[in-house]
Amino acid sequence: MSETTLDVLGIGNAIVDVLAHADEGFLVENELAKGAMTLIDAERSERLYDRMGPGIEVSGGSAANTMAGIAAFGGRAGFIGKLRDDQLGRVFAHDIRAAGVAFETPLAADGPSTARCLILVTPDAQRTMSTYLGACVELGPDEIDEAAVASAAITYLEGYLWDPPAAKEAFRKAHRIAHDNGRRVALTLSDPFCVDRHRDEFRALVGDHIDILFANEAEIVSLYQAADFDAALQDVRGHCAIAALTRGPKGSAIVADGEVHVIDAQPVAHVVDTTGAGDLYAGGFLYGLARGFDLARCARLGGLAAAEVIGHMGARPEADLVRLAAAELD
Amino acid sequence: MSETTLDVLGIGNAIVDVLAHADEGFLVENELAKGAMTLIDAERSERLYDRMGPGIEVSGGSAANTMAGIAAFGGRAGFIGKLRDDQLGRVFAHDIRAAGVAFETPLAADGPSTARCLILVTPDAQRTMSTYLGACVELGPDEIDEAAVASAAITYLEGYLWDPPAAKEAFRKAHRIAHDNGRRVALTLSDPFCVDRHRDEFRALVGDHIDILFANEAEIVSLYQAADFDAALQDVRGHCAIAALTRGPKGSAIVADGEVHVIDAQPVAHVVDTTGAGDLYAGGFLYGLARGFDLARCARLGGLAAAEVIGHMGARPEADLVRLAAAELD
Repeated sequence: MSETTLDVLGIGNAIVDVLAHADEGFLVENELAKGAMTLIDAERSERLYDRMGPGIEVSGGSAANTMAGIAAFGGRAGFIGKLRDDQLGRVFAHDIRAAGVAFETPLAADGPSTARCLILVTPDAQRTMSTYLGACVELGPDEIDEAAVASAAITYLEGYLWDPPAAKEAFRKAHRIAHDNGRRVALTLSDPFCVDRHRDEFRALVGDHIDILFANEAEIVSLYQAADFDAALQDVRGHCAIAALTRGPKGSAIVADGEVHVIDAQPVAHVVDTTGAGDLYAGGFLYGLARGFDLARCARLGGLAAAEVIGHMGARPEADLVRLAAAELD
Repeated sequence: MSETTLDVLGIGNAIVDVLAHADEGFLVENELAKGAMTLIDAERSERLYDRMGPGIEVSGGSAANTMAGIAAFGGRAGFIGKLRDDQLGRVFAHDIRAAGVAFETPLAADGPSTARCLILVTPDAQRTMSTYLGACVELGPDEIDEAAVASAAITYLEGYLWDPPAAKEAFRKAHRIAHDNGRRVALTLSDPFCVDRHRDEFRALVGDHIDILFANEAEIVSLYQAADFDAALQDVRGHCAIAALTRGPKGSAIVADGEVHVIDAQPVAHVVDTTGAGDLYAGGFLYGLARGFDLARCARLGGLAAAEVIGHMGARPEADLVRLAAAELD
């Protein structure tokens, strides 16, 4: 097996987030499912944007956030995702490269505009997301750079890729290349509604092709249609090699063939915006795995990165994670 | 004199800010004048952006920030400024309207792209700005809506308008209409380098056409080439009817014909980013004037709005200024 040039290659929807504060009444009036990610078309996106308060634009996208987290720890991360060559596309491309992530996917010269996720942050710091996929629907197997996948120790895929039509094929191509080259494949289930949309396929995928699974409580319970978290934990044990299950302030549980760890959450003084908590948990965890740390230490790094990102608006780390990790782990 | 439909109409450069953290070394390497606003062309803007860290995009522009502040207090604010009809232009237009500011300037279908200000925030919370004026160079007398100016109790102009070529004429048209209709005209000097570029014209303007002047310490000292702040204060007294002079953590001094007030700054727990401090001070002050408050109370409202905006990234208010003002003033 050849040397790796990347610790983790993430493949996902390339999205610019538009974050605004909103109250609960706004969610009700606009029939938004609180805490969830809902797909919307261009027209609904325009209408919702018109009604929203002033926003801030920040690069986002689940797998892209995770890769930014890995790079912030000092890991070698790459990203594949589809943008349109427009102003927001160039913002995304700038930001991911400036975060230290290798990004080579060509920007589309025409077609739908760069994807946008309208994120409403309520006073309880919960985020409710409405995504217009835009250029992401153009992601297909052609965008999967075989050499990049083959050179990454872990290929990380987001469940959200099951939504745009051609991305599923890209997803399958990526896990084939990874396994053919003796690499590992990780998946995040992304969102409980996403699991609802694709449950049977996801369950087969987890059992057959995934080495490392990330899910929060609602997602893993939905995947197995389990009675509760513990039942889902029993279901996933033995179904894939490593599962990292996050539970917000209750911390996380790591389930592997021979071991189970229950790790407390990192305390957070003031939760501002939970956007990106799961993404950054995965970033810290995967960075730890790539460094060969034990599973409990990987989980602590995940918790550390999640705690940082929920302390401010936006889903990419702002603090120096290398320094935070050194302080935590030494 | 007819009834007003606006408390304040602001005219200024319509700019989207791109904020990123940077260390002092980055400013030195890129020959950036710390704390200042420097005009750059499209090519230099691209080069600097390529080197900057990941950013967040937030609507900005000095006078526009001030109008957002007035609206956040519950005042009736309008804005005139030139955007290109591109993604960032539509972001700016959305944000200013969502902030409750009337904005009717048509977006340009072609020409330079929407203006962008690259703002580097150093660990001491100082901001260093590099502005590509883009579509702002298209602002001219045609954009000045005579009815809007005539209907506003105060027309507020930013000194930065002296930079793009045609805006100066727009500026002159606006103060003529305002005075012909018995309204007041306010000006902010914007930036000490801007004052350096246009000192003689600014001095004549302040003496002849401005009723309310906003300046910080460096700007007012530069305007009169005074030995120190107190000397500049003596120079401005009698030169224009009201001058509001800000001094950062030292508070502000209000100089009017018959009175001088020295008002302490509002304490701030943790200064994150000083971008917009002067803009929001002007917003609070003008809101107070429009409500007929005395000058000391206007200054306290200015200090309150400035204190709010330096507590977070970005130059538009995030907190509920109506509530803050009620708590402060009652």
